[in-house]
Amino acid sequence: MKLATLKSSTPDGDLVVLSADLKLARRVPEIAPTLQAALDRWAEVEPKLRRMAELLDAGSATGAFAFDPAAALSPLPRAYLVFDASNYLRHHELMGRIFNKPVIGATFTEPFGYQSGRGVLLGPRDDIVMPKSAELWGMDFEAEVAAVTDRVPMGTPAEKAAKHIKLVMLMNDVSLRHLNLRELEKGFGLFLSKPVAAFSPAAVTPDALGAAWDGEKLHLPIVSTYNGIEFGRPDAGKGMLFGFPQLIAYCAQTRELGPGSIVGGGTVSNRDPKVGSSCITERRALEIAQYGEPRTEFMAFGDRVRIEALDAQGRSVFGAIEQTVKPLAPAAG
Amino acid sequence: MKLATLKSSTPDGDLVVLSADLKLARRVPEIAPTLQAALDRWAEVEPKLRRMAELLDAGSATGAFAFDPAAALSPLPRAYLVFDASNYLRHHELMGRIFNKPVIGATFTEPFGYQSGRGVLLGPRDDIVMPKSAELWGMDFEAEVAAVTDRVPMGTPAEKAAKHIKLVMLMNDVSLRHLNLRELEKGFGLFLSKPVAAFSPAAVTPDALGAAWDGEKLHLPIVSTYNGIEFGRPDAGKGMLFGFPQLIAYCAQTRELGPGSIVGGGTVSNRDPKVGSSCITERRALEIAQYGEPRTEFMAFGDRVRIEALDAQGRSVFGAIEQTVKPLAPAAG
Repeated sequence: MKLATLKSSTPDGDLVVLSADLKLARRVPEIAPTLQAALDRWAEVEPKLRRMAELLDAGSATGAFAFDPAAALSPLPRAYLVFDASNYLRHHELMGRIFNKPVIGATFTEPFGYQSGRGVLLGPRDDIVMPKSAELWGMDFEAEVAAVTDRVPMGTPAEKAAKHIKLVMLMNDVSLRHLNLRELEKGFGLFLSKPVAAFSPAAVTPDALGAAWDGEKLHLPIVSTYNGIEFGRPDAGKGMLFGFPQLIAYCAQTRELGPGSIVGGGTVSNRDPKVGSSCITERRALEIAQYGEPRTEFMAFGDRVRIEALDAQGRSVFGAIEQTVKPLAPAAG
Repeated sequence: MKLATLKSSTPDGDLVVLSADLKLARRVPEIAPTLQAALDRWAEVEPKLRRMAELLDAGSATGAFAFDPAAALSPLPRAYLVFDASNYLRHHELMGRIFNKPVIGATFTEPFGYQSGRGVLLGPRDDIVMPKSAELWGMDFEAEVAAVTDRVPMGTPAEKAAKHIKLVMLMNDVSLRHLNLRELEKGFGLFLSKPVAAFSPAAVTPDALGAAWDGEKLHLPIVSTYNGIEFGRPDAGKGMLFGFPQLIAYCAQTRELGPGSIVGGGTVSNRDPKVGSSCITERRALEIAQYGEPRTEFMAFGDRVRIEALDAQGRSVFGAIEQTVKPLAPAAG
């Protein structure tokens, strides 16, 4: 089953069920008005949503209309928890070179990640709006896979965490690299340097991912395209230190996770240089190693990033994130 | 105006308007079902809520009933953003001794704080439920003042941020000190070590705080009582490095804050040793200085903490947070 959220007059938008090919949508206010409302009582709501998805795929749903990703908000337009891991060994290694933070033993024994709350999550076609001075702050994208949970009780072990993964999405975790380092030094976590994140049009249930989902990881290349040129297509299933159930269990050690918690699997990164990178900083680290200096600039206003995952038949699984970087208009407040 | 949220069958509870003396409550589904819904369209909703508050205070509201803080959830039972600052110079100094992190120049030029999302915020009388092993993790409380905002546009400067403070509350930011240090070293922020937070029964509009609110700070002693004995009563208006508008402007530098964002003002701490402390770790730091070793133990299961602010006439402004530490029952998942 695939779900999305359409823009409406309310911050949480309108939940829609999508057809498997992402072409058709149907609002379902009689089942759940929003995705958060659905996740709040998922056990009751899920079977009803699945029946609607079956009708859509059979071409027999009344009230269906063409799905326009440009009309979509993030599947969850706001979320109570985003825990985003740094979770691919190759990403650790390359970021470590840039930030002069070598990979340490703890990297292998427990997840690294920052937590965030987000009252505003960007939709798949929303501009990345940043202050004018952000062109000096090392604007970067990060292509990731993210899981959405229902309620996860405190103390849930990894072996029981997989069943709490209700949806999977793609994520663009926008990063301000020159602010990263200062925040790593302060030790209180990444905040200003992790300003916004965007999500794919569709959130997909694990079963609908078929063989690409093994219960812990998504085995698909995540294709990042930057200003129209392919930037990387590393496989999200390779080189991941901790699977999603382990990340969720880590988060739930000292708290209950509320329904609709988002766990980001980390910037997808493989050791094979031929597959490219999922963020600019990794490429810069490789360029420094090769040429003695970085040759790829960070993002500037006007730059465009696209993130998508295609299945074995070349079909878009989640729809594409497609964003342009734009300067914040003056006169805020 | 004072607002609260009562337990109901839904995670966001029922919004109630309170009388100024916290004795009477009235549900207001005809105005806004939940506090988040009210904050989502605050400009429209606030005047209606205020009229109800006036009726309650005049004793002429129909549908009023006795307010029971034990029936209350946190005013916001879940929140999209909690940014919690370390923001009293004395707290920086004393925590710095414990964590071997001396006060640095940046302490004076920009806020230190961690961000959090919370799908579960504890109500004023909820137990602090922690895993069994948490007795080894240095369980501590932290008495704080917290502000709730409406939508704050990205780039809002401090001089325009005060008007976005819609409500003020008290907060108990539960901390696991032995996990703090490890997380400070990892640099990705405080997560496992900041497991849960609880809030006062009432959220109070700044105007209802009278002279105690100067637009930036709350000038009232925050009284912490630990196992029935007063632990501290430092003044929240003294020794604060950054006022709430500055904290909000800091947070809004690279993102829009959604309605219902919570900004914690930091563990209240004064230089005067006679007023005591708002957390156990500060007292332990002072004991180490005086006796060469800490003499106050961290919290154990069964311990009780109470946090309250009294006005000049000795009346409880927000109602009291009163919590008992309890072990997590087995069989989670």
